[in-house]
Amino acid sequence: MKLVRFLDEIKKKTGILEDTHITEITGSIEEAFDNPDKCLKQSTHNLNEVKILPPVLPSKIICVGLNYIDHARELNMDLPDEPVIFIKPSTGVIGHLDPIIYPLSSKQVDYEVEIAVVISKKAYKVKMEDADDYIGGYTIVNDVTARDLQNKDVQWTRAKSFDTFCPIGPCIQTQLDPSNQKITLKLNNKIKQQSNTKNMIFSTPELVEFISNIMTLNPGDIISTGTPPGVGPMNIGDIVEAEVEEIGVLRNIIKN
Amino acid sequence: MKLVRFLDEIKKKTGILEDTHITEITGSIEEAFDNPDKCLKQSTHNLNEVKILPPVLPSKIICVGLNYIDHARELNMDLPDEPVIFIKPSTGVIGHLDPIIYPLSSKQVDYEVEIAVVISKKAYKVKMEDADDYIGGYTIVNDVTARDLQNKDVQWTRAKSFDTFCPIGPCIQTQLDPSNQKITLKLNNKIKQQSNTKNMIFSTPELVEFISNIMTLNPGDIISTGTPPGVGPMNIGDIVEAEVEEIGVLRNIIKN
Repeated sequence: MKLVRFLDEIKKKTGILEDTHITEITGSIEEAFDNPDKCLKQSTHNLNEVKILPPVLPSKIICVGLNYIDHARELNMDLPDEPVIFIKPSTGVIGHLDPIIYPLSSKQVDYEVEIAVVISKKAYKVKMEDADDYIGGYTIVNDVTARDLQNKDVQWTRAKSFDTFCPIGPCIQTQLDPSNQKITLKLNNKIKQQSNTKNMIFSTPELVEFISNIMTLNPGDIISTGTPPGVGPMNIGDIVEAEVEEIGVLRNIIKN
Repeated sequence: MKLVRFLDEIKKKTGILEDTHITEITGSIEEAFDNPDKCLKQSTHNLNEVKILPPVLPSKIICVGLNYIDHARELNMDLPDEPVIFIKPSTGVIGHLDPIIYPLSSKQVDYEVEIAVVISKKAYKVKMEDADDYIGGYTIVNDVTARDLQNKDVQWTRAKSFDTFCPIGPCIQTQLDPSNQKITLKLNNKIKQQSNTKNMIFSTPELVEFISNIMTLNPGDIISTGTPPGVGPMNIGDIVEAEVEEIGVLRNIIKN
């Protein structure tokens, strides 16, 4: 099932996406995780007639650094023994088709396609084998990064925290094997990143265990699981498409 | 005026702290920033008979690295030309007298006393000279840090993101000159950190300008402005007191 949030004229709604139509449901995305059948409604909308919103409004977005074997090889780096994490602020979140604003203070803004876990219920000290009980589904994050500022600061926070630097969407796929999905990034329709989530160093259950042993994860929180090789710069006017096989395409344009 | 949030039996309330009593007010802390007189109520409470809560529940906590001249000298480092920022998650927030939980995965947990700005209204691309219009007041943050994990990860996020690693309080002081306040940390009643906020490299208005040019700050968000020299470890059973002259004392105990 693909869950979406969308704007129908001025009302924010939740629905289930199938092909080009959305079946509107009552309640929030979090309620739909628990009992989607109970939430069902009859009203349907044409995908082209609504505006897609970010599928969740996370209280926090935890991202994982170097987490693809092929990316580590590309950088000639040893594989990490533990995940390295950082946080993107919720004020960076935008949805499918929203513009990414190129900040005046950067000269190099990069794309990074990632598959992201959406937490369904409060999670603290969760064991890997129980992780699925706390995962509502999976979405796509473009971990937009001002590479020049990342290199200057050493700490990654500023580079990854600009408003609009966290496109999320277009939907949450609730049925997905996160360990074997094609993951692709296209810039102006040219493939720039292409890998498979089977190349991840730390699996999604391992990440849920690791992160929930540090901090409580709330419903709607996001774990973005790292990017494959091929990251690179975007320019004003570019169209960037972050794609995960069974989730969909998250498309954004770069503006000033 | 010292604004507090507190628990009166099971009800969360807002009030004005004077000496040992709290005058309860209607509305939230954010409403009190705007028009405290309008919020006033008659009911008073004895400070000893209520539980003090964190004075705000920030959607994000932006912290500044190395920001005291004397701390930079102590570390023999050049003064930075721009602030280095990182984010602590809101799930780390605890209040005055709440326990800091020592995590199993660390062998060195340090205190760091800091003066913190509380944002009063939505702030984006604010100029330094207008910063005061967006500041509701000042509070104290103990930027608790698992020093061993900070050194291991290079990125600071994990080390600073454990649940309970962000004591905030005890109150928000709405009238304060943040550029000249004694700042002190005591561990088991011994002074460990002592400086003055006049030693800050980047002033609070400069920080509001710098950070709000990266991301939107929401009402209740916190900017923690960095720590003076003398950081060091705490052990289970220790009592840690973070103090800023005209704000008060933020006291916590370390537990396992």
